[in-house]
Amino acid sequence: MRHTSRDIRTANRYQVLRQAIADSPVSRPGLARETGLSLATVATLAGELVELGMLVEAGFEESGGGRPRGLLAVNPSGGALVGVDVAETYLHVEVFDLALRVLARGHETLGPADGAPERLAQRIAGAVLGAAGRAPGHRVLGVGVTMPGLVDREGGVSFAANWGWRGVPLRELLAERLPHPIYLDNPMRACVVAELWAGAARGREDALVINLGTGVGAGLAFGGRPHRGATNSAGEWGHTTLLPHGRPCRCGRRGCVEAYLGAPGIVHRLRRSGDGRPERGPAGEQAGAGGPGPEHPPPGGEEADRRHEGAGSAAGDGPQEDQTAAIGALARGCAAGEPTAREVVRETGELLGTALADLVTLLDPEVVVLTGWVARRLGTWLLPPARAALGRHALRRPGTGPELVLSPVRTNPVCLGAATFALEGALAAGGRKDA
Amino acid sequence: MRHTSRDIRTANRYQVLRQAIADSPVSRPGLARETGLSLATVATLAGELVELGMLVEAGFEESGGGRPRGLLAVNPSGGALVGVDVAETYLHVEVFDLALRVLARGHETLGPADGAPERLAQRIAGAVLGAAGRAPGHRVLGVGVTMPGLVDREGGVSFAANWGWRGVPLRELLAERLPHPIYLDNPMRACVVAELWAGAARGREDALVINLGTGVGAGLAFGGRPHRGATNSAGEWGHTTLLPHGRPCRCGRRGCVEAYLGAPGIVHRLRRSGDGRPERGPAGEQAGAGGPGPEHPPPGGEEADRRHEGAGSAAGDGPQEDQTAAIGALARGCAAGEPTAREVVRETGELLGTALADLVTLLDPEVVVLTGWVARRLGTWLLPPARAALGRHALRRPGTGPELVLSPVRTNPVCLGAATFALEGALAAGGRKDA
Repeated sequence: MRHTSRDIRTANRYQVLRQAIADSPVSRPGLARETGLSLATVATLAGELVELGMLVEAGFEESGGGRPRGLLAVNPSGGALVGVDVAETYLHVEVFDLALRVLARGHETLGPADGAPERLAQRIAGAVLGAAGRAPGHRVLGVGVTMPGLVDREGGVSFAANWGWRGVPLRELLAERLPHPIYLDNPMRACVVAELWAGAARGREDALVINLGTGVGAGLAFGGRPHRGATNSAGEWGHTTLLPHGRPCRCGRRGCVEAYLGAPGIVHRLRRSGDGRPERGPAGEQAGAGGPGPEHPPPGGEEADRRHEGAGSAAGDGPQEDQTAAIGALARGCAAGEPTAREVVRETGELLGTALADLVTLLDPEVVVLTGWVARRLGTWLLPPARAALGRHALRRPGTGPELVLSPVRTNPVCLGAATFALEGALAAGGRKDA
Repeated sequence: MRHTSRDIRTANRYQVLRQAIADSPVSRPGLARETGLSLATVATLAGELVELGMLVEAGFEESGGGRPRGLLAVNPSGGALVGVDVAETYLHVEVFDLALRVLARGHETLGPADGAPERLAQRIAGAVLGAAGRAPGHRVLGVGVTMPGLVDREGGVSFAANWGWRGVPLRELLAERLPHPIYLDNPMRACVVAELWAGAARGREDALVINLGTGVGAGLAFGGRPHRGATNSAGEWGHTTLLPHGRPCRCGRRGCVEAYLGAPGIVHRLRRSGDGRPERGPAGEQAGAGGPGPEHPPPGGEEADRRHEGAGSAAGDGPQEDQTAAIGALARGCAAGEPTAREVVRETGELLGTALADLVTLLDPEVVVLTGWVARRLGTWLLPPARAALGRHALRRPGTGPELVLSPVRTNPVCLGAATFALEGALAAGGRKDA
């Protein structure tokens, strides 16, 4: 609850740099207009960012006869940011310049033996150093790492079910192996920060970022900042109830959002449809009785979501590859106008819109952004039925309601978000130095 | 998105005064300890609050031989704050001193003719001046007014279905009739601010305040501040879905949380139970079929929630009185150990916990507070089954999960919250003066 003027200065720095990244090259009055900050504040903050080497002077704006205005651009060689997405079966690394463009990538598979904390820290450090080595000439300003499970931002991983971790001081273990500042957080937080910096939530106060992959989650932003919750694990939307007594979910409950909107749930709907046993849509799906029988929980869990986002070098391991292949085939079927594919995706979109309606009624956001590999593959066909169902089911408010859009982020959003944690850290640290 | 150091100073003033109200009389080191602010910051802010006449020096603390510490107390005659709760059929006014104790009350019934904007402004102004006149010797620092519907904090009421209002500049109409600063907002926001200032959310970052009355809603606080949403209408939890295709709700949808947890929903369950047709609990209630037939929507809407909170002078008008009487009888039945009453409230508590589980899974709050007249009457018997169901249905996180508690606020929380809007306004205005 402690609020200091340093927090404000840091938040304003974020805004100015974020806008400069979006509009580079841009004049100071342009930045002031877009951020709502005064020209004097922008001039001061821009000066600090130039001093930190993040922005550079970039000539003058064409003007209609008046005094020419100086332009600022992001300094492409001002530093590198590393984002690491760690999951149960892989780790993916991306190195970004300050304009948030990818300079280098790395992808490694992880086996069960890599779940030992020291060993995992070693693997992460090796991958970071390797990827950074492929982006020479860029000083690394920081490394952001996301981990599945309960991540304590200060120290480590308080809980990770997949490896049986409890209270592992991962940041310390990484700091012993890497000479850069380390920032630890969870993947949903990374997705929302990626949208705030470089996606559809930029400049918004209240946004929901819905991750559709093997798992389903919601990144929440309120007041332009990610909402973390008491244990930094807010956003477990996938495990709220869509249909009481509905399909079994891998979490042990029934009828969870994820059981219908995660890749395995969509594939399940497709297979029943292919069997000539079309599953009824949201209006006809009975609770308690008549639903599908128990299905095997997907073996991959969270990580399968994102393994296909990145470098594309993932090794196949059966069921996860099946899901990717099935969702890919579904996307091709939709593109070809194949009726079964279209119907399965339409029903899924309708369920998505119905589920989102409760979120929108409760939270009243400005924008809802769909991200994740399933959203990227099927988004074109999911959006229209989802928008229609959202409009039908959300509490009516005057005006048009929130936008429902696909993420414009074209790289792995988890790595991008992890890298922006490092960028935010560097901006805050710069603030500390001159305080 | 503009963040200024004035915001910070204002937020820190809120914290210091909030803590002083809780602990008065209290030393500066005591305030620093409780707020987490530095002693220097507390000393500066306390000085400002003394200058504004809100705090006074109040002698010295007993000390074990060291230098005696000066104590600060809330200045009981430092000013008055007026909170007005406007509903369709009544308006309720309370006047508070700076320690947030009630100095005077007023209650008036409203008829259909009072729905004309000028006429309503006249009624509100008259009630405020009347109540303030019953608290002589206190200068009124501001008047907070809550209105059902969509309230635009800046200017007025953008939408109020009950009176067919669209874009009514209520604040302007009130400012023409009252010499005090006017603060306009909606009742759910008032409930959450009341808990932040004087209730179970004090000192918390992330809290949910659940209002159980005729209507059902959720006040959300994130980062120690109320979450408003894009149209200042976040928190419509009552109209999210608990059971798809379930009971009809007065909003026109089916299966809404409010249809089960609002007073009419509870009374409905009781009547079926009395008829020997006990309605099944959450596990047995079928979606789509077998549910109760359409019920008449409660005629009162939002306002019946709170008419019984306050002065107790509400005139009876049939169905609303029936609800109050029925909930009162249910409370007496529970107190007497009457099995049907206990069972109806147990089932309701179980549904409440089940519904809250999704909120907790999504938002990861520190505390969930039950407020409203139904919570006050039935809370003792609702809490145990609600806690049990919440524990069963919420996503498991390490640790104990959020507390689920009854509001400790003993006065009308909407009036108290409205008055604290005026207090916050006075603190922010004081900040502007010396800026």
